[in-house]
Amino acid sequence: MAFRDKKLGEIGEEELVEIIIKYLDPPKPYEHLLPGDDARDFLPSGPKLVFSSDAYGFSSLKLPWRTWRDVGWAGAVGCISDHFSKGSIPHAAMISLGLSPEMRLADFIDLIEGVREALSTYNIVYAGGDLNSSKDPWISTSIIGYTTAKKPPRRSGARPGDKIVATGIYGAMGIVSLDGINEASRHGWIIEATRRPRPRFETSIVVANYYRWIDASMDVSDGLSYTLYVMAREAGLSVRLTSPPRHFGELKEYCRARRDPERCVIERCLAGGEEYGVVLAINEKYVGEITEMLEKYSVPYAIIGEFIKSGIPGEIFWRGERIGIVRWDQFLGWRKNYG
Amino acid sequence: MAFRDKKLGEIGEEELVEIIIKYLDPPKPYEHLLPGDDARDFLPSGPKLVFSSDAYGFSSLKLPWRTWRDVGWAGAVGCISDHFSKGSIPHAAMISLGLSPEMRLADFIDLIEGVREALSTYNIVYAGGDLNSSKDPWISTSIIGYTTAKKPPRRSGARPGDKIVATGIYGAMGIVSLDGINEASRHGWIIEATRRPRPRFETSIVVANYYRWIDASMDVSDGLSYTLYVMAREAGLSVRLTSPPRHFGELKEYCRARRDPERCVIERCLAGGEEYGVVLAINEKYVGEITEMLEKYSVPYAIIGEFIKSGIPGEIFWRGERIGIVRWDQFLGWRKNYG
Repeated sequence: MAFRDKKLGEIGEEELVEIIIKYLDPPKPYEHLLPGDDARDFLPSGPKLVFSSDAYGFSSLKLPWRTWRDVGWAGAVGCISDHFSKGSIPHAAMISLGLSPEMRLADFIDLIEGVREALSTYNIVYAGGDLNSSKDPWISTSIIGYTTAKKPPRRSGARPGDKIVATGIYGAMGIVSLDGINEASRHGWIIEATRRPRPRFETSIVVANYYRWIDASMDVSDGLSYTLYVMAREAGLSVRLTSPPRHFGELKEYCRARRDPERCVIERCLAGGEEYGVVLAINEKYVGEITEMLEKYSVPYAIIGEFIKSGIPGEIFWRGERIGIVRWDQFLGWRKNYG
Repeated sequence: MAFRDKKLGEIGEEELVEIIIKYLDPPKPYEHLLPGDDARDFLPSGPKLVFSSDAYGFSSLKLPWRTWRDVGWAGAVGCISDHFSKGSIPHAAMISLGLSPEMRLADFIDLIEGVREALSTYNIVYAGGDLNSSKDPWISTSIIGYTTAKKPPRRSGARPGDKIVATGIYGAMGIVSLDGINEASRHGWIIEATRRPRPRFETSIVVANYYRWIDASMDVSDGLSYTLYVMAREAGLSVRLTSPPRHFGELKEYCRARRDPERCVIERCLAGGEEYGVVLAINEKYVGEITEMLEKYSVPYAIIGEFIKSGIPGEIFWRGERIGIVRWDQFLGWRKNYG
């Protein structure tokens, strides 16, 4: 049997850790602790430190068209996206894994290479982590980053009248969540769009530069409607949507035969997850300046509405009607229209 | 049915997150992001940043005599111990959880309170984390800390002739691993000693002060023999043990009727795990000065031997004989005499 066809349970923790260590970043001259040690040391390189964690069960990451490399990628970028929404430049990541003894070594290596690719793409140090056995495999990513923003925007800071700018392109994961994986798997563009979510680093630079006028910010990890709902609820406000966010051209095609094509489009933009755009609540006076900078960086965005003081906190209105919120709850499964 | 008797799968992620948020630390005046946000912001408060992660499947933490509070405690202190061994003062923790939908809410709350108690005991900010569903529950802890040590001691830095100082008290978990849980559960002192491991904060101060003469340092999380084996192997050296580490008085009693009581004692000191002492490789000239400081802080320790240049790297000798290494491998189970 080829070595790569062996199972983790035939290889053992020590050898697997040795494999991971080869993917870790070597220390920079000012570091002293080496890859594989119990911790890594860094020099703080920004006035403020930002710290976040994100974790997933593989069952929620493993879309049928994702390879193990894609799963490693997807397990790393959620935490990266958190940093971008707060104006932070991620610096170093610790990635812990719970893996099945039945997993093939080749798949393990692909998984680690996917993690490595994501971290390299965003220039983040792969600093270490911890390896565990699990019958229900998982990945947990923690990242430290730095920001020049004295006050990184909270998710709860939106004010009445703030314009809502959503970065990112929507609609692909919305079809996965509303119409199911079988339907989604028939469309090459959905597969292409959801295989490897790519949060935009440049968003973070814009947030860090304009934090004074960005009253609130949150990334889109559990669907756009859920992000809007949380930001509105925590600010005691509602959302008036005026335009759909940027979405895939193929979505219009997809919705053309529906009874209400426009509603079909907006619903699929609002549902979904892992788009990793950022929703910004921006003081009206500075929307022009901030969107101009997003344009300079070629970050796709749209002004999709505003926060208003009416209704029950957390409600989302579109064309005068309350619109449903769709979200995957870790314990309850798909939940619609709550809030 | 009482609320506390409900299962997580009947309550849902949002409400569980609300419960956790009540246990998180409120922001200090210089922080801006609030508990429950996607990240937390901090001001770096030491010249060097130390970052580490540690994770466990509950199946490996759940000794039969550990309550859910004890499990929460044990899931947090491993990562704290990593910081102490590197001379770092842990500052803030992110704790991610994968929990069964079948878990009772009361147990969930006990688990979080155990985490909270551990972090409060060591004055660490409970900053957040992520909540997931899992059929094989787990906990992953990431901590950032600060150190004044320009060069925090590596695990691999031991030199020939370095004296080996082991802090901590050994022998209780060694009985669990060598003689089994059934045998261990008959002894109140073992239950008491293993319920809540307590790494000593003061060790970190000593390491940070004397890092220049501490050539290597590693905490004892997978048994003392494994820590010694790793430190020796990575330095290309062997270990000559001359004395047992500090151990429970009851261990002598326990071993009295054995054929070789002295061997019974040392074997149980070397096996085990989660003792969270620290093994220091100290330049011979400074052993007196450093142990004096450990004494001032009332940290239990013993000079147990020295690193030597002979044999195969990683071997441990006691009374002229090679001694076996015992360790739990996440994928292979208990492994003896390897290396």
